[in-house]
Amino acid sequence: MRDADKIRAMLVAWAEAVAAGDRAGILADHARDVLMFDFPNTVKGIDAYDRTWDFFDASRRSEVTFRPGDIQAVAGSEVAFASCEIHCAGTTADPIDFRLTMGFCKEAGRWVIVHEHHSMPTTEEVLIGPDVA
Amino acid sequence: MRDADKIRAMLVAWAEAVAAGDRAGILADHARDVLMFDFPNTVKGIDAYDRTWDFFDASRRSEVTFRPGDIQAVAGSEVAFASCEIHCAGTTADPIDFRLTMGFCKEAGRWVIVHEHHSMPTTEEVLIGPDVA
Repeated sequence: MRDADKIRAMLVAWAEAVAAGDRAGILADHARDVLMFDFPNTVKGIDAYDRTWDFFDASRRSEVTFRPGDIQAVAGSEVAFASCEIHCAGTTADPIDFRLTMGFCKEAGRWVIVHEHHSMPTTEEVLIGPDVA
Repeated sequence: MRDADKIRAMLVAWAEAVAAGDRAGILADHARDVLMFDFPNTVKGIDAYDRTWDFFDASRRSEVTFRPGDIQAVAGSEVAFASCEIHCAGTTADPIDFRLTMGFCKEAGRWVIVHEHHSMPTTEEVLIGPDVA
């Protein structure tokens, strides 16, 4: 499998694990020193990353949809990144579409996820102030 | 210069160009098909990317601070990514600290920026609903 295809497959497998509530699957390909820009804050290390999913799991109210779309994967031989949008539904919140970027490194011949950036779109008013929006 | 140092320097030069309002400098290292997760929406291509800075420039009210911190750069020989936080002040909005991830490819021996993801932290209530927050 080409590296870009492998990266894409890893992202899809991770999203499927999130949908299924499979914590071992969610964590399976993450580096110990993962750096995540989570929605509300910055998370460092696999233990802290693991705990962020406690919060998500507490919000499940039915079958969860966690579906990546528009996946773009760019891979070299040692470093790669991927971006996509994720449609998430089935939690106590309204359905959302958010943006995801993941960074990957090959460690001892195996791709691992070392960076994640999750975000919701933000309105311009927050950024620039109301007078020019 | 090591590739990771080059990536770091490119990010810093881009931020300095933003602070200075130097549009040519902002665009200098971007790919024609750049994919940006901007704060409010998804932006595709260098022309659309260029136009996003019109909005930012309209918000300048004094000397603008646009300062990266905690830069993490990971580079292979062909693909790289970097993350940081940016402190931005001097616009019509309140000062903000936001998160940035950039993806890079080497094209014809030269590093270019092919992906940008800008985001503000988002409160949990938006994501999970108020009843478990």
